[in-house]
Amino acid sequence: MQIRQQGRQTWLFDGPLGIIGQAAVAGPREGQGPLAADFDQIFDNLRLKQDSFEKSEQKMGERAARAAIAKAGLTPDEVDVFFAGDLINQITPSGFTARSIGIPFFGLFSACSTATEALSLASLCVASGAARRALALASSHTCTAERQFRYPNEYGSQKPPYSQVTATAAGAALVAAEPAAVKVSAVTVGRVCDERISDPFQMGAAMAPAFADTVQAHFRERGVDVDYYDLVLSGDLGRVGQAIAQDLLQLQGLSLAQEQLADCGLLLYGGDKRVFSGGSGCGCAAAVGFGHIYRRISQGELRRVLLCATGALLSPVANQQKESIPAICHAVALERGE
Amino acid sequence: MQIRQQGRQTWLFDGPLGIIGQAAVAGPREGQGPLAADFDQIFDNLRLKQDSFEKSEQKMGERAARAAIAKAGLTPDEVDVFFAGDLINQITPSGFTARSIGIPFFGLFSACSTATEALSLASLCVASGAARRALALASSHTCTAERQFRYPNEYGSQKPPYSQVTATAAGAALVAAEPAAVKVSAVTVGRVCDERISDPFQMGAAMAPAFADTVQAHFRERGVDVDYYDLVLSGDLGRVGQAIAQDLLQLQGLSLAQEQLADCGLLLYGGDKRVFSGGSGCGCAAAVGFGHIYRRISQGELRRVLLCATGALLSPVANQQKESIPAICHAVALERGE
Repeated sequence: MQIRQQGRQTWLFDGPLGIIGQAAVAGPREGQGPLAADFDQIFDNLRLKQDSFEKSEQKMGERAARAAIAKAGLTPDEVDVFFAGDLINQITPSGFTARSIGIPFFGLFSACSTATEALSLASLCVASGAARRALALASSHTCTAERQFRYPNEYGSQKPPYSQVTATAAGAALVAAEPAAVKVSAVTVGRVCDERISDPFQMGAAMAPAFADTVQAHFRERGVDVDYYDLVLSGDLGRVGQAIAQDLLQLQGLSLAQEQLADCGLLLYGGDKRVFSGGSGCGCAAAVGFGHIYRRISQGELRRVLLCATGALLSPVANQQKESIPAICHAVALERGE
Repeated sequence: MQIRQQGRQTWLFDGPLGIIGQAAVAGPREGQGPLAADFDQIFDNLRLKQDSFEKSEQKMGERAARAAIAKAGLTPDEVDVFFAGDLINQITPSGFTARSIGIPFFGLFSACSTATEALSLASLCVASGAARRALALASSHTCTAERQFRYPNEYGSQKPPYSQVTATAAGAALVAAEPAAVKVSAVTVGRVCDERISDPFQMGAAMAPAFADTVQAHFRERGVDVDYYDLVLSGDLGRVGQAIAQDLLQLQGLSLAQEQLADCGLLLYGGDKRVFSGGSGCGCAAAVGFGHIYRRISQGELRRVLLCATGALLSPVANQQKESIPAICHAVALERGE
């Protein structure tokens, strides 16, 4: 298969690069939301019978990975390379999942944009001939991330209305050079953007410029019309970030229609007020993109979607050291396969 | 250029895949060691005029990245993609370097094996045609890593003699599809290995099985003779880990000669007793591999080296939760270019 670089950031795949297996799993709150029917597994509690939340997150990611492989009628031994990441220090849930499933492993960190970083690199491995099949996974868990970045949920501390809540979810996608109902047609690699926002609750505002930058680069470099995509889907900008992103795109001269824009962090919870501005976390774009969106494309409801997972590359230490919040967004084009 | 997958884990690059720029920078202790002449920059103190050690690490990585690009006669704008990682939570030094140099960025976490993960993926991007030039970077700093994983150095806490010390160093390599003095000829992607060691000071012993697993896979899949490489260089097993690795390779039937084996963590410090069993950290294999080893290959002292950076995928939280230490090793073959 040929890989064509267009411009600096965009890769086009000329050939059948199919998602031959996928899975999305979710926690109890996500399982009660509008996307419930698109999850392969919904857990009725946050523990998954593990003695720590970190182990619960690992188990959840592992379930998604194994389900995606099984749905393709394969075993982990038949997958050549595995790209995964999460929000936890030293990405231990992903590392332990790699230990458990035994697939040669590349660990990633790109905060909540991990889903599309993983799918980009998995697609590159297969399209280039370096791997027959490659697996992409991203996960997050509200109890591990909230206590690491902010406060344990059990403290019940107040959050501002523009804040977001980490999703308990994981999504996996298995790529091979075969025709499938959904194919990966293009990737745009993101650059780090930083508009000097330093409030760690202002994630949507911090990530919106990165989303706009990558979407602009994608349309410019791929050279497609403004109406090419049925949906240009941000990862987890939430209500606040999405409004800013829309303004930015307009100001920069890219006039996407209102109905072309949606956000994984809003789709996942509908209007649930308990998540404030919306959901976030690596598992958010992974579960919505590889679950809900995959299903809608495969059933013909959507033809072409640009999945743009967004990540805020902050850490609690960097924040305490008065650093602003750099953000990034990687885009993957998913299209109806032949 | 053609990429050939051999076996499950190994990629062969058939074409001129050259390292067209490289740089290694180091802190004061490393700069007094036997490899001093191979560093582009040696810092006379650990601060680099920054107000936190995390910012010092970021500055150090950025210096290595910029030096590698400059030595190729290029500017950051002429590099299409950047792979980097470090040991710090949420890899903020790498993320902030990506913000500063502006190259489209994929963040990695693979602990001390980051140097070869980054170089593997940078090589894949260029060889596949997805990027014209790709930059790989890895860094570590003794003051950021020791305080995050163990205790601040200022506490002066005792360490056992089999422990290692995080190197203050960074290494960068710039890859392009051009002939150069040193080329990347093959990659073997590592699997996670875990022999249930849980003492976080026993890094060498925890990582030795991963090194042996990847080296075995490489020789088996690439199908080269046991004397093909002048050097099979482990990342940072230290004295203790290297002895275990040698035993493991022997037991598994791969009889490399004594002089074919060396360890970056030992080369970097010579016999310096202050680093106990040897050096470690993402910057160790990066600075030794992309600095010292690059120089020796380019000058004809070595013809072929298998650089096998090793990483321990633990976190302080996982360790407190009684998890054992999973480890991984990615191998990159560096050879004299045409």
